[in-house]
Amino acid sequence: MHLWFTEEQTAGFGITAKIKKTLYHEQTPYQVLDMVETETFGPMLVLDGMVMTTVRDEFVYHEMISHIPLFAHPNPRRVLIIGGGDGGVLREVLRHSVVERAVMVEIDSAVVEVSKAYLPQLSSAFTHPRAEVHILDGFRYLSDIAETRRVSYDVIIVDSTEPVGPAEKLFERGFYQAIFDALSEDGLFVAQTDNPWFKGDLIRRVSRDIAQVFPRAFLYTANIPTYPSGLWTFTIGSKVYDPRTIAPHRVDRAPFLKELRYYHPALQEAAFVLPRFVSALVEGVLENGTTI
Amino acid sequence: MHLWFTEEQTAGFGITAKIKKTLYHEQTPYQVLDMVETETFGPMLVLDGMVMTTVRDEFVYHEMISHIPLFAHPNPRRVLIIGGGDGGVLREVLRHSVVERAVMVEIDSAVVEVSKAYLPQLSSAFTHPRAEVHILDGFRYLSDIAETRRVSYDVIIVDSTEPVGPAEKLFERGFYQAIFDALSEDGLFVAQTDNPWFKGDLIRRVSRDIAQVFPRAFLYTANIPTYPSGLWTFTIGSKVYDPRTIAPHRVDRAPFLKELRYYHPALQEAAFVLPRFVSALVEGVLENGTTI
Repeated sequence: MHLWFTEEQTAGFGITAKIKKTLYHEQTPYQVLDMVETETFGPMLVLDGMVMTTVRDEFVYHEMISHIPLFAHPNPRRVLIIGGGDGGVLREVLRHSVVERAVMVEIDSAVVEVSKAYLPQLSSAFTHPRAEVHILDGFRYLSDIAETRRVSYDVIIVDSTEPVGPAEKLFERGFYQAIFDALSEDGLFVAQTDNPWFKGDLIRRVSRDIAQVFPRAFLYTANIPTYPSGLWTFTIGSKVYDPRTIAPHRVDRAPFLKELRYYHPALQEAAFVLPRFVSALVEGVLENGTTI
Repeated sequence: MHLWFTEEQTAGFGITAKIKKTLYHEQTPYQVLDMVETETFGPMLVLDGMVMTTVRDEFVYHEMISHIPLFAHPNPRRVLIIGGGDGGVLREVLRHSVVERAVMVEIDSAVVEVSKAYLPQLSSAFTHPRAEVHILDGFRYLSDIAETRRVSYDVIIVDSTEPVGPAEKLFERGFYQAIFDALSEDGLFVAQTDNPWFKGDLIRRVSRDIAQVFPRAFLYTANIPTYPSGLWTFTIGSKVYDPRTIAPHRVDRAPFLKELRYYHPALQEAAFVLPRFVSALVEGVLENGTTI
C-alpha cells in the first residue's frame, strides 16, 4: 500500500509526504497528535493535521528561534520557553553555558511524552540539570509570575503552534504585555509568526501589537522546507538591544557553533534583511521593515 | 471534480496544487509542456512534470537571477540569457537602462509561444526594442560566437530547467568554459543550481566545476515556495568582480527598485550569507563557502 500524508497549507496548496509507518495517534485534551515516519524527512510530528517538526529539518527552526535571541542578549541567564513540548528549543538553549536556568512551560503533556518516545534527538534535554519542565498553560504561568514578581526572564521564546486551538491567545496583544512584564529590564522575546506568503495579515497584525508593547521590534526569516511556503518568520520584541548585533564575547564563548547546521553568526544580521514583499508587510512598524 | 496536480520532488515528498482549469498540453520536441491554472499560485507552467514558474511567485526567481549579477557588474551593456523561454528574466534584465542589448537564446519555441499566450506578465518584453530572441541551442550559440569571436557579453544568465533532458549539458564543465570564453574581460555569469536539501551532490559538483573555470565563484539563495524545499540556489562565476558589492552609481540610476517585490540592495550582500549546511556543501570551493 502506498500511504501519503498531505497537509493542505492553504485551501488549494500543500505538501505531500510518503509514509513508511504510522507510529502513534492520539486525541489529546488540546489537539490531535500524530507521529509518522516519512520517507524523505524521517519521523514527523503532526498536530491538528499540521507538520510541527521532522527529524531531518528540525534544526532550522530550533536553531533559529533560539540562537538569534540568545546571542542578541549579552547575558541571558534565565530563559523561559513557552510551548516547545518536543524539546528542540530547550536543547538549543542549553548549549549556551551562560544560561543558568531554562524553564519550559508546555500545555500538552502528550507532546512531551511522544517526543520522549519517538524524538530522542529533540527530547534529550528534558533531564538536563539546568532544565525545568512544567506542564502548564503558558499564559497563566506568566500571569502568576507577574502577580508574585518572584522571577524575571532575560529571554522568552514562544514556540507555539499556529493561532488555532490552544495557541490562539498566544497571538494576542494581552499576551505580549504579559511577556513584557515577565522580562527583566533589558529582556527580549521572540515568537514564531508564520509565513509571509499565506499569512501576511497575521504578520501585519502581530508585528503591530508587538511594536506597541515593546520599544523595539524586528522580524527575521529562515527556510523550513516542511512549513508552508518554505519561508518562516520570527518576530522579536526587545526592551533595549538590537538583535542584529552580537556582543563579541558571547560568540567567543560558544564552542558549539561548529556543531550547528543552520545558524551562523553572520546570519545574526543577514536573517533580518527582508525580501521587499516581506518588509512591505511591516513597513513603518518594525525597525527593519524598510523597503527603501 | 476536484483536480490536484502533484509534483513528487523526491521519491517521497512533493507539493500538491488544486487546479481550476487545465489550459494547455503539448509534447514538444524537447519536453512535455503543461499550463494549468492553480487556485493558490495562479497560472503555472509545468515542464516534464516539474513546476517551472507561477504567476504568483515568479518574481522571486526572475528578480534574484537577474538583479544580483546585473548590479554586480559596473557596466553591463551586453547581456545574454540562455533558456528563459517564459520571458521573465528578459523582463527584469531590460529594467536596467544601462543594458543596450539583451539576447535570449531558448531551445524550445513552444515555451515562448505558450508564454505569449498564457503568461503576458512574463512575456511582455519579447517585443522590447533592446531585446533579441533566438530559438537556438544555447550551447551551440556559445560555440558559434567563440569561433567567430564577433561578440562578447558582460553578463550571461543561465535560466535552464533541471539537469535532465535538454538542459543536461548546461550543468557540465565544458559549458562553463564556453560561457567563460563568451564573456568580456570583466564579465560574470549566473546559473540556477537547484536546492541544497535534495540536490547537495549537484551543488557540490557544479560549484567545483565553476570554481575551476572562473577565478571567483559564489553561491546565493532565495525563497521560492513552489520549488523543491523552498530554498533555491544560484551560482556565480566571475572574472573580476565580487557580486556581494554594488557600485553605488548603479543603484542611483535604478528607479525601478521600488517596483520590485523581492530584490533589495541590502540582499546583494545578505543573499550570500549561507546557512551552515549550505556553506558546508561548497566549503573551500566558493569564496563565500565558509562555515566558520
